[in-house]
Amino acid sequence: MRDDLQLLIISSPSGAGKTTLTRRLLSAFPDFIFSVSHTTRAPRKGETDGSDYHFVAREEFVRLRDEGAFLEWAEVHGNLYGTSLAELDRARSLGKRGILFDIDYQGARQIKAKLPSVTAVFILPPSLRELERRLRSRGSDDDETIARRLAKAKAEIEHYGFFDYVVVNDDLDRATADLHGIVRAERCRRTQRALEAEALLRE
Amino acid sequence: MRDDLQLLIISSPSGAGKTTLTRRLLSAFPDFIFSVSHTTRAPRKGETDGSDYHFVAREEFVRLRDEGAFLEWAEVHGNLYGTSLAELDRARSLGKRGILFDIDYQGARQIKAKLPSVTAVFILPPSLRELERRLRSRGSDDDETIARRLAKAKAEIEHYGFFDYVVVNDDLDRATADLHGIVRAERCRRTQRALEAEALLRE
Repeated sequence: MRDDLQLLIISSPSGAGKTTLTRRLLSAFPDFIFSVSHTTRAPRKGETDGSDYHFVAREEFVRLRDEGAFLEWAEVHGNLYGTSLAELDRARSLGKRGILFDIDYQGARQIKAKLPSVTAVFILPPSLRELERRLRSRGSDDDETIARRLAKAKAEIEHYGFFDYVVVNDDLDRATADLHGIVRAERCRRTQRALEAEALLRE
Repeated sequence: MRDDLQLLIISSPSGAGKTTLTRRLLSAFPDFIFSVSHTTRAPRKGETDGSDYHFVAREEFVRLRDEGAFLEWAEVHGNLYGTSLAELDRARSLGKRGILFDIDYQGARQIKAKLPSVTAVFILPPSLRELERRLRSRGSDDDETIARRLAKAKAEIEHYGFFDYVVVNDDLDRATADLHGIVRAERCRRTQRALEAEALLRE
């Protein structure tokens, strides 16, 4: 049985525009679902279980992890986060064609190792200076926080080698077209279309 | 020195819509030029030398061929046809970013062997029955010609393995979006964007 589920990872440093690009992608390709992560941290106000995260107790997370239920997982500030393999089944059971993982490069690296057919896209800001400008324009962070975010961004960009594609978000519409183009192109790979070619040859 | 010239092959059986898709591509991406082939056949009415073909005498073609000037060449009905390496220089000298080769699978195969970085796209009709309907609706071919074209189409489709991408032209707008997506995606490959990522890391 052939499994056509398209696996797409999108990563980027904070401030590069990933949230907007992801929202646009899901709107343009309604046959994609967004992968919902598991976490042991408490829900914040307004967050819904099963939609923002699968909120689970630490013992439950550890049990799932030890059973091999996660494609990737990490501990951040004392909380566990992970992407469950069951999300792929959820996409299939909904009749979807693709699933989108919004994760950092470490998660991308782990998923790539387990599912080499995944397509990994890294969103780059046009420059670190522009990234700093964008972070400052939010007005929500002090200098120290911004400096920390910039250092973290640079550390993430150093791992662009784990990604198949790099989209430079210097213009939002162009970056959107690039990202949608990647999704379309991956669907047109010869190996993805081989059954259609074979059907023609059997006519 | 890095050479960013994007090499794109588009092939298809006759009647699959390649001409329209090619025209749309060149209109959407004015930074592409269309590769002009060499031929020893006589110009037809309305054809311009250097634009439709480079029309050359047989001795000139053979001399060029023996010098290794062609990326691919073939003899069809007693006439020689070929794609000159000099077309790449023409694209570069015009400051273009890409060059489009409209050739059959045998040409695609030869170019792929010499320039493995080329992107090869095969346009498929949705079915052979639909291809037959399209050929008949042109009203210009008799039954025998149509049968020959269909047999040739099937023989070409059998070589889809030489292509990186397969675009099924069941809907012209969707096929256009797929083809443009492929061009964009290829430009976003990590290896194509590595210098931009490196520039950020040096900031």
